[in-house]
This record gives sequence, C-alpha cells and structure tokens, in this order.
Amino acid sequence: MIRSQQGRGNQEQASAKGADKRLVDLSVDLPPLDDDELASLRQVGAHWAAAIGHRGPAAVALPVDPGLHHYPEAAQVDGGGRFAPVDLRTAEATGEVLATEQATQPLTGPGRLLFWTRRVVVGHPRDSSAVTHERMRKLVALPVLSSDALSSIAYGPEAMLAVLVVAGTSALSLSLPIAAAVAVLMVTVGLSYRQTIRAYRSAGGSYIVAGDNLGVVAGLTAGASLMIDYVMTVAVSIASGVQAITSAIPAVRPASVLLGVAAIGVLLAGNLRGVREAGAIFAAPTYAYILAVLLLVGVGLVDASERGFHPSPPPAVRATQAVSLLLILRAFASGATAMTGIEAISNAVPAFQPEPWRNARTTLTWMIALLVTLFAGTVVLTHLDGIVPQSDQTVLSQLAHRHLGGPLYAYVQAATAAVLLLAANTAFNGFPRLLFFMARDGYAPKAFLHMGDRLAFSNGIIALAVVAGVMFVAFGGRTESLIHLYAVSVFLAFTLSQAGMVVHWWRTRQAHWRKSLIVNAAGAVLTALVLVIAAVTKFTAGAWLVIVLLPLIVVTCLRIHRHYQHVNDVLRLRPLGPEASGWVALPAPTSTTQPPGAGEPETEESPEQLRHLVVVLVASLHRPTLRALAYAASLGQPVLAVHLSPDQEEAGRFRGYWHAWGEHVRLEIVISPYRAVVAPLARYLQALHQQRPELTLTVIVPETIVSHRRHQLLHTHVAARLRRVLRMQPETVISTIPFHLPS
Amino acid sequence: MIRSQQGRGNQEQASAKGADKRLVDLSVDLPPLDDDELASLRQVGAHWAAAIGHRGPAAVALPVDPGLHHYPEAAQVDGGGRFAPVDLRTAEATGEVLATEQATQPLTGPGRLLFWTRRVVVGHPRDSSAVTHERMRKLVALPVLSSDALSSIAYGPEAMLAVLVVAGTSALSLSLPIAAAVAVLMVTVGLSYRQTIRAYRSAGGSYIVAGDNLGVVAGLTAGASLMIDYVMTVAVSIASGVQAITSAIPAVRPASVLLGVAAIGVLLAGNLRGVREAGAIFAAPTYAYILAVLLLVGVGLVDASERGFHPSPPPAVRATQAVSLLLILRAFASGATAMTGIEAISNAVPAFQPEPWRNARTTLTWMIALLVTLFAGTVVLTHLDGIVPQSDQTVLSQLAHRHLGGPLYAYVQAATAAVLLLAANTAFNGFPRLLFFMARDGYAPKAFLHMGDRLAFSNGIIALAVVAGVMFVAFGGRTESLIHLYAVSVFLAFTLSQAGMVVHWWRTRQAHWRKSLIVNAAGAVLTALVLVIAAVTKFTAGAWLVIVLLPLIVVTCLRIHRHYQHVNDVLRLRPLGPEASGWVALPAPTSTTQPPGAGEPETEESPEQLRHLVVVLVASLHRPTLRALAYAASLGQPVLAVHLSPDQEEAGRFRGYWHAWGEHVRLEIVISPYRAVVAPLARYLQALHQQRPELTLTVIVPETIVSHRRHQLLHTHVAARLRRVLRMQPETVISTIPFHLPS
Repeated sequence: MIRSQQGRGNQEQASAKGADKRLVDLSVDLPPLDDDELASLRQVGAHWAAAIGHRGPAAVALPVDPGLHHYPEAAQVDGGGRFAPVDLRTAEATGEVLATEQATQPLTGPGRLLFWTRRVVVGHPRDSSAVTHERMRKLVALPVLSSDALSSIAYGPEAMLAVLVVAGTSALSLSLPIAAAVAVLMVTVGLSYRQTIRAYRSAGGSYIVAGDNLGVVAGLTAGASLMIDYVMTVAVSIASGVQAITSAIPAVRPASVLLGVAAIGVLLAGNLRGVREAGAIFAAPTYAYILAVLLLVGVGLVDASERGFHPSPPPAVRATQAVSLLLILRAFASGATAMTGIEAISNAVPAFQPEPWRNARTTLTWMIALLVTLFAGTVVLTHLDGIVPQSDQTVLSQLAHRHLGGPLYAYVQAATAAVLLLAANTAFNGFPRLLFFMARDGYAPKAFLHMGDRLAFSNGIIALAVVAGVMFVAFGGRTESLIHLYAVSVFLAFTLSQAGMVVHWWRTRQAHWRKSLIVNAAGAVLTALVLVIAAVTKFTAGAWLVIVLLPLIVVTCLRIHRHYQHVNDVLRLRPLGPEASGWVALPAPTSTTQPPGAGEPETEESPEQLRHLVVVLVASLHRPTLRALAYAASLGQPVLAVHLSPDQEEAGRFRGYWHAWGEHVRLEIVISPYRAVVAPLARYLQALHQQRPELTLTVIVPETIVSHRRHQLLHTHVAARLRRVLRMQPETVISTIPFHLPS
Repeated sequence: MIRSQQGRGNQEQASAKGADKRLVDLSVDLPPLDDDELASLRQVGAHWAAAIGHRGPAAVALPVDPGLHHYPEAAQVDGGGRFAPVDLRTAEATGEVLATEQATQPLTGPGRLLFWTRRVVVGHPRDSSAVTHERMRKLVALPVLSSDALSSIAYGPEAMLAVLVVAGTSALSLSLPIAAAVAVLMVTVGLSYRQTIRAYRSAGGSYIVAGDNLGVVAGLTAGASLMIDYVMTVAVSIASGVQAITSAIPAVRPASVLLGVAAIGVLLAGNLRGVREAGAIFAAPTYAYILAVLLLVGVGLVDASERGFHPSPPPAVRATQAVSLLLILRAFASGATAMTGIEAISNAVPAFQPEPWRNARTTLTWMIALLVTLFAGTVVLTHLDGIVPQSDQTVLSQLAHRHLGGPLYAYVQAATAAVLLLAANTAFNGFPRLLFFMARDGYAPKAFLHMGDRLAFSNGIIALAVVAGVMFVAFGGRTESLIHLYAVSVFLAFTLSQAGMVVHWWRTRQAHWRKSLIVNAAGAVLTALVLVIAAVTKFTAGAWLVIVLLPLIVVTCLRIHRHYQHVNDVLRLRPLGPEASGWVALPAPTSTTQPPGAGEPETEESPEQLRHLVVVLVASLHRPTLRALAYAASLGQPVLAVHLSPDQEEAGRFRGYWHAWGEHVRLEIVISPYRAVVAPLARYLQALHQQRPELTLTVIVPETIVSHRRHQLLHTHVAARLRRVLRMQPETVISTIPFHLPS
C-alpha cells in the first residue's frame, strides 16, 4: 500500500520539485516567517528592550527547571509506588524536551478510554522519522498502480450493456463498435499521459497541471472533480465488489448494503492505521485478477472456437425504447467508465526506480495494453455468449459460470472482489493527499494538514469514508445508479489535465513539443467530447448532481482561500509605524448596541503599556471564591469583585458577608431582576470597558470541577457560558480558576 | 392558570409554613451562610488583614467607576449615532447597578437570533416582583382544581369496559358492581383527603406528607410516583383528548400522533410563557364539560325511561377469555384511573380565600359529589344503551351520538377535548414545582431551581414535555396502552400520602385525631389494595416498567443528594486550624500516572502565599502570540514560553526567531515526534507542577477568535482542547488571551 500511497494521491504534490524532497512537510502548519515579518519581529524586540530593558521577565529566575533535567528520575515511581513510564525526557544534544510515545496518552479518564480504543483499532503512534520512500520496480508498480484502472473492467462493460439492453436484444450487438470506440479512447488517453509523464517528472496530477497552466479556477475545478472522483471510486468499487460476492453467494444479497458499509469501515480503519507494509499484498490480488480475466477470456474464446465463433443468440428481451443516437452515446459514456484510474501512473512517477520517468512510461504502456486486452476480451466474449446483464448476477459472473464453474468460478469472483477493494483503497490514499495539497495552498480547511499519529491524514480519510458511505447507502449500493455520477467528474479531470498539457507545451517549447502538443490536444478534444456526451446523456440520471456540486465546491474553496488570506494579513507581524514610541492607536470605544469585536482587533503593546483591571466574579462566598480572590489580589493589579443578585434582599445579605470578611476587595453588586445571569454580567463588563477602552480586563471566573462526567449534569455551567459570551469582547482575558472536587 | 399553578404543584411546598411566605425563594441557589461559615469568613478576613494589611487591593484606586454613575448618559448614543437603550443603571438608593430588561439581551449574533426567536414564542421577560398570589373563590377554585379529576371520566369508564369486553358481551354487565366499588373508593379517598386538608393547611402533597411522616425514602418514592404520574397525566390526557377529536372527525385519525405532539408543543410554549392571566379561561371549559356530561346523562336517562329503563342488548362480541377474578380485578384497576387528580385540592389550600382550609374542604366535597355523579351516570348510561368500546370512537362519543347529535354532539366532544387539554396543563404546573422542591432539598439537579425570565421553571417544563412526548409517541398515542402505566404510580402516591397522615395523627394527637386516623387508615388500606391489584393485574401490560423505574428514580435521587452533600462539605468555609499561621497543608505532589485532581482539592491561601509561574503557549510568532507575551510579562511574575515542535528542524528555526526577537522571555521547546499536541503539553505542564506543587501555574493560551461561526470550521481549536484537558490539572489557571479577527 505504500506504493499506491505514492500513487494517485501524489498527483497533487508537483510543487515538491525534487524527487527526494519530503512528500509532506510536517511543520506545514507552522509556516516560516518571511523577511518582512522577521524585520518587524526584530523591531518589536528592540522596542521591548527599550521599554523594559534588563528588568524584563527573562531577568527573573524561574522557580522551576523548564528543561526537566532531573525529571525522569523524580517521576520514575509515582505516589502509589507503581512504576510510571517516562513520558518526557531531555534531548541531551540540543536541550529540548522530547515527548516520548508515552506522552501522547491523554491524562483524563474519558480521553483515556477513547485513546485505548483508538490504539486497539488503529495501533501505536509512529515517529515522524518513519516516513519512508520506497521505490518500485516496474513489475511491482504495475499491479500497485493499475488496480483502479483494471478493476474498472468489472463494471464498465456491464454499464454499457445495461444501457443498450433497454432497446432490446438486437441492440446488444452495438456493443462491439462502441467498445472499439472506447478502446481507441483508451489508447489516445494513454499516449497523452505518456507526454504528461515526460513533462511533469516529479508528479503531474490534474490539480497541479491544470492549476499551473490554466489558472487557479481550472486547478480548483480539477481538484473538485478529483474529490468527486475519489468519492465515486470508493462507492462504485465497493458496490461492484459487493456485487461480485452476491453473484457468487446469492444468500447474502439482502445484506449487500451492510456488506458495503462494513467494507468501507475496514478501509477506514486500515487507512487510519496507515498500513504501508507489503507492496506484495497489493501485487498479488491484481495479478490474480489479471490472470483470472485472461483465463476466462481464453477459455471462453476456445469454447467459442468450437462452435466456429458463432454468437449464441441472447435471450429475448423486450425493447422499452428504440435505438437512438442518444442511447448509443449514453452506452458509450457508460462504457468509458472502464477508463477510470488510467491516470494513476502519471501521478506516481517519483515512486519508480531510476530512471523514473522512463520506467513509468513503460509501465503505462503495459497497463494500457492490458486494459485494452481485458476490456475488448470481455466485451467480445459477452457478445459471443449472448450474455444479457441481470440484476442479481454480474456479467463477469455469468461468463465465469458458463466457462469455468466450480473452484475456478470462485477464484474469478474472489479475485474481482479483492481488486475492487484495492481500487477503493487507492482513493483512500489519494483523497486525503489531494486535500492536504489544497489545504497547503489555502483552499481547504487547515484540519486536512494534520498528519495523525500513524502518519496518515486522518481527517481526510474520515471525511472520505463518511461521504462515500453516505453516497453508497443513499443509492442503495447499486452500481448501475452510482455509475451515472462517475463519468462526468472523471472526464472533466482528464480534459483539464490534457488541456493544461497543451498550454504547457506551447509555453515551454521543450524538445518534441510539437508532437506532444498534438497528442495531448487529441486527448483533450476526445476526453472533452466524452465529457459533453456524459454530461448530456446522463444529466437526468444523476450527472446534474455533479454539475451542481462542482461550482459549489470551487466557490467554497475560493472563499476558504479568501478567509485564510484575510487571517494571515491580520495576524502577521507588521512594521511599527512612525508613532512607534506611542506604539499603536488604541481601538475606538465600542458602542452599546454594536456587537463587540466587530471592528477593532486587539493591538500589540509592549508589557509596560498594558493597563490592567482584574474583575472577579463572585456568586457565593465559599472556598473556590476565596481562592479566586486571593489569586486576583496576588497579581498586584487593581481588583474589582462583582456579584450578581436576583433582588435587593439577597444583595443586602451578601454585602453583610462582604463586610464580615473585611472588604479586602472593592465589591460591586449588579441586581438582575429578570434572573438572567450571563447577559447582564457581559453588559456590565462591556460598560467597564467603555469607560477605559485601553484597559485589559482580566475576568476571573471561579469554576468548580467535578471528577465524574456524569456529575456535570448536576452543576450549572455558568463559567462555560460566560466564557462563550465574553470571548467575543475585545481586550478581555478570561481566566478560569479551577477548584477540583475530590471524587 | 395562576390558580392551577397553585394547584397540584403546590403539594410540594409545605415547608413554606405561612400562607404568605413567598412560594418560591428566588435566591434559593445562593443559600445564606450558616454561623460556622460566617465565623470562618471573619477568621479568613482577619488573616488577610494581617498578611496584606493596608497594602491590599482595596487600597488601590480603581481605574474605572464600578458604580457606572455616568454610564447611561455616556452610552445614550452609540458610535453610529443610533439610539442605544440603557441596559444598566445605578439604583440611587443603594448604589447597586440594576440590570434592566435591555440587559437580558445577549451580545453575540447567534445568541441574539435565539433570543429574539424565544421572545416571539415565549414573550418579554418578567420582573421578579411579578410573582403574585391571587386567592380563589370556591366557585373559581372548583373548576380550576378539578379539571384533572373530572376529565378522568373521559377515559376511566372506557378503560374498564375495554378490559371486560374481552370476556364477551355478557361480561359487560359486571361494569355496574365494579363501578360501585370505584365510587365507594372515591368517597373514601375524598374523606381521607378532607383530613389531610385539616392537618396540612399550607399544602400537603404526597412528597411532603410522606417525607415528613414516613422518612426520606418514602418521600422520594412518593416524589418518583408523582413524577411518573405527571408524565402519564400529560400522555393519557392528550391521547384521550385527541381521541375525542378523532371520534368526531374521523378524517384526521391518521394524523392523531402528530396532533398529540402538536398539543404537547402548544402546552410547552404556553407554559414557558408562564401564562397566568385568567382563572376564567380555566373555569369556562371545565364548567362547560360538567354541563355537557350532565346533559348527556340526563337526556340519556330520559331516553331510557321511555323504554322503562330496559337495557339495550349490546352488539354480540366474541369472548376471547373467560370471566375470571383476575379479569374483574383488572377491570377494577382500570376503572380506578377515573380517580386521578382527586388530590389536587388538598395541595392548593393556601390558594383559597379565608378561611382557606374550610373553603378547600367544602370545594373537595363538591368535587367528589360531581365526580361520583358523572362517573356513575356515565357507567349506568353505557350499560343501559348497551355500548361496547370501539377502537375508532370513544364511549362518550357513542353516547353523545345516540342521545344528542348535531351541534350538541360537537359541543360535548369539544368540551371533552378542552378539559383534557387543561388536565394535561395541570401537570405542566405540578411537575416543575415538584422538581423545584426536590432540587431545593438536594434530590434533583439544581438546574430545576432556576426560574426563567418569565417566572416559569423552564427546565422542568421542557423536561416534562420531552418525556411525555416520547412516551406518547412510543405508545403510538393509544390511551388503552398508556393507561396501564398510570394506575400504579397514582395509587402509590395516594397510599403513601394516606399512610403518612395516619402516622401524623398518631404523633400529633390533635383534636379529633382518632376519627381522622381511622378515616385516613381506611383510605390507606383501600388505596394500597388497589395499588397491589393494579401492580399484579397490569404487570405484564406495562406496569412492570413503572415498578422498575420507581426504585431507579429513588436511588438516583439519593445519589444526587449524596453528591450535593459532598460538594457542600468540600466548598463550605472551614475554620482555620492551629497551623493558621502557615495556613493549610499543601497538596501532595501528583504522580505521573494517577489522573490529576483525583485526590487533593486546591487549598485556600491568602494572596501573599501564592507563588506564580506564568506559562505562555506559543505556536507561531504572530500578533496574537506577541500580545499574549506582553500580557504575561506585564503581570510581573516569572514567565516561561513553551513551544511545541514536530521536529528538530522546526525547533531550530523557531529558536532563531526567538533570538531575533531578543529572548525577552525564557523559551522551552518540547518536541513531539508523534505530532500529538494537547497531551504532550499537558504532560509537560504536569511535570512543571510536580517540581513545585505549591506553585500556581497560569497557562496563557492565545486564541484567535473569528467573528463568523461558519469560519470556526477553518481553524484548529487547540485552545479549546487544551482548556478541556488542563482544567483537570490542580493549581492550574487557564487564561485565554483573545485576538479578534475583524470580519
């Protein structure tokens, strides 16, 4: 699986210019500062030095040893005498603290349960250094990278026949010329991708090629097509794999949706584990499948030769529709789904042994040859045998029943199901990587940048499983319904990729650019034609959904990008202006009605410019409150205690207690006759803020923390609600002073 | 509705000794300190004074005016020139700040939407002073307090006949003797409650009477029965009311579940509004209903007299079961559900005009007389007419069809449906109040103490609507299924109440105690008998559910009480020990493996005893981070910055930036090669804590806050996750330094 990890997915990583550059930068969400920012940083530092000089915090001795130099010894045995594994240790060379695997364990109860469940399902975390880069021999690369393409034979021809059969038995003979057209298309596209391999030697996926050459929107359109494509690969492959199983064992038919969901679950768990051992486990089923189909076609042709290649008449099927151009084109578009996955090799060039691009081209040629052979063989045999698509048995299964039977039949079905599962798995490698590269460019949520502790892009994997699972279930796991959504996205990505290559050749004018341009242009025109055919003929059957989704995805990506741009602009360090001595202008006072935080972000200040007011919220006078008051007082800043009271009576009583305590802190009581808690407090704090907008309000909220989650229901969560509201208020720091209840 | 608010619900408020005592104490969740705590408070205050003296925070001038003396003027017009209503003003007399209705409005966008939706549905908030105490004349009290009891006629007799009819037509004649037994029971229980009224003149609900006289567990058992009882009252009354409607308009039958859910929704909204105008709107439907049934029975008897009171033979029904003692007893238990609600008057004594208890007794006598009359009349008429219960039409509807027809028929059905809706509404008053009183005693979650801004116990109202709605839907809205769950809880509450009264008389030996004791004992024995009969005969039909739930509820209540006791013990102020000069022992160091916060709560300290370490978490060096660093440095305490890095490369780069800035704060880098973020940081902070357990760690988390909720998806919520984990750590204060993104 490691290879196919470098497989289709890699198409998005062209920006890694050298093949040896790490595929994925681990610190991608901690981007380096640019020169402007670095200059600003120095300027800010100089300002601090001028303002606080040697009285700064760095001059104060820390009460702890932050390097934990004696930590492991001290923590070796815990209070109860049990052995405590060392979670942190000091890296001798550099002085950093190193978090061992032990340190990834959560500290709290519920988190721990989840952690251990996850560990059983997904396995131990993996060190970042475990990112490895195997290189594949051609004989390994072929099965690993072609499972997606070759497995399409299992549903492509069948989808074509299913369209033709509505025009009755006689229309089935049209399958031969249509298949010939598809085969021509295969060869053209194959030749076209040979040019791509030569040009994009690191990796040339549609998102990259289209984005590089045709602009951002084309790149995002290709990206969106690929996203849909990956989802459909999972849904269609699983649906078709389940059909291979139910054809062989009709008894499990009623459970086919369940079976498919279970298969997606297995793929999800497996990919979260980040399985990367064993190219062999990928090679074996694909070769077994190639052998199975070759065997089937071979035996079938021998059988047919015995009756002089005379086609058996198919069983009579009543036509519900006349043969029309539309029908033929629709059949062609359906048959063309046998081409899905053909681009995989062009995206995985760096995964080949040197000279990578040459080996990749050779492997691509082999694959195209195999694909055309298997496709043509299947269609011809189906025609000779007079096979008609049935709802309860696949065409391949019918062929295998007729010509092989017994254990060989079981072998064909098992190999088919296995290769379809592998094909779905390639999407689980490609989709998260596509989203990673889109997120790195700022077009997808940053959550997709995160590499999980198994070195897998967990968020992308989960997203794919959920979306594909929903699709699969929504369409009842029926291949014939799902496949109508497939062709448009596949051929859109093809077209954009080839069109991008045409522009590439025109611009670069490298050696042989004329020949390559012509080949790619032919590919682009042909695939564009198929795209239009698929969009028109399958529009009402489901393609409309894809046509609606595509622009939605592209617009969403663009808006995400705009948001991240905006955030970066706001957050990045800026040079200090001429008023640097007075630093930055203070924000304008917020109005009463305008929501706070709407206009003015917090400004940078150096420590000596901050003016504090510490506000302690006190409900009752019990231990957590007194602790919070002590904390506030110990900060040495002005402190105000605020109490919210439902009526005058309680207010008077509380004032009495305050007096008994000694009035060590100034108290203000807010009476809330409408019994609201959060809103009046927030408004009171806002009123304080309005008086002196330059003040930093530190709101201290005492919070009683229970040790059992079930006890949380028994407490009102005013602290959490206050935090939610106050966090929108500018210049307001919320400090939670915990008081832990022993269990 | 204000009366019925003082209705069944009030049974739980006996502890309000005088009738003029406020029914609900608004500051019940801000309990007064007892003498021990007050003494401790003074001691703590003296200690503070000794430790910090006149250097304390109260000596520091505040940079703001906390009393907001010039606030309204300043805020009258906001920045945009719009008029801003005043949300806070200073109460001249006492100096407190008063939160006006305007101040209950949330400040943030999503909160505002919810707020305005709520306001449209539920209405404007109400000032606490709006709690009023009307007193009812007997002629108003009768309909208000008896809608629950009298409406039971609509399903009680029918439930009895539905049991008998399985033994065939002939068994139906058994209805007369069984009804006679129920009538005797009604009179006995009525007499019994007359005694209760005399003894508990403020209010004597089962929870109070049983708790006072039989102990906590009996009180909670009664409380649990009442809870189930209220839920069933809603479910059964709504089901029966819907049946009254569908009997009249068969076309709406398919929508009956929907209709019931809608009715519960209306009751929910109405009660959240806290409708308390108009005793009249309660009186009218009940009187209309009484008249309707009396009219029906009268006309029916006249009709019967015309044929010499000769019973019409009922249509032949095939017996599926022989007449047996079990069947008769089950019919009796079903018929006894006509008694539900009989206790309402005894719970609402203070709501009567003086002399309350005398007026309440008189009204109770009237109600029992009406109840027996309507019940007996209905049963006799059903017998004379040979009516058999049908699934698509109620018995009352059949009778009305036969004797009235036309507009009078519609009148009977409408009055029945209306009174059943009112009966369900009484539960919406009683249930939240029961939970309030249980919560006040610490046996239910404190959330039920909260009086919403409409002076209604919103949480209890919502809880009842949800549970009753679920019950109603789960049983498909079928009265005949729901009613089996009803009898057990009703008669358990009856029995406990009467038995409690027996003990009461024995203990107090007030005037006439012997007579009262005998009457209550008779009531207790009879209702206990019915309880046993109902539990046995209906066990398999659904009563088992109630029998399982009751002990579960009681045990849950006891555990809730234990938890609150524990919390109070921990939180309350304690006298300083002999080591007061050194104050309190420091907590033992936490071990690595033991979850933090498991054993040692934070100790109180006076300000000068707190030792600080401020830890700033820095991810990247951008504006929010620098702001957080400035904040930390300005506190004048030792500061340590911690950066989490995925690898050495990034760590080195970050160290370079730190150097460029000027190293104003000591930096420690934690390398997390497994890419976990939260757990390693938590463990590192724990390791710091272990070095010096007496330190208070203030963890400063810079948090970028987006202004649109939809943008939250685009940011990783490390700050929130860290807060969740760190809040379990002892002596750790979490401060969130917000940085607001302008939209």
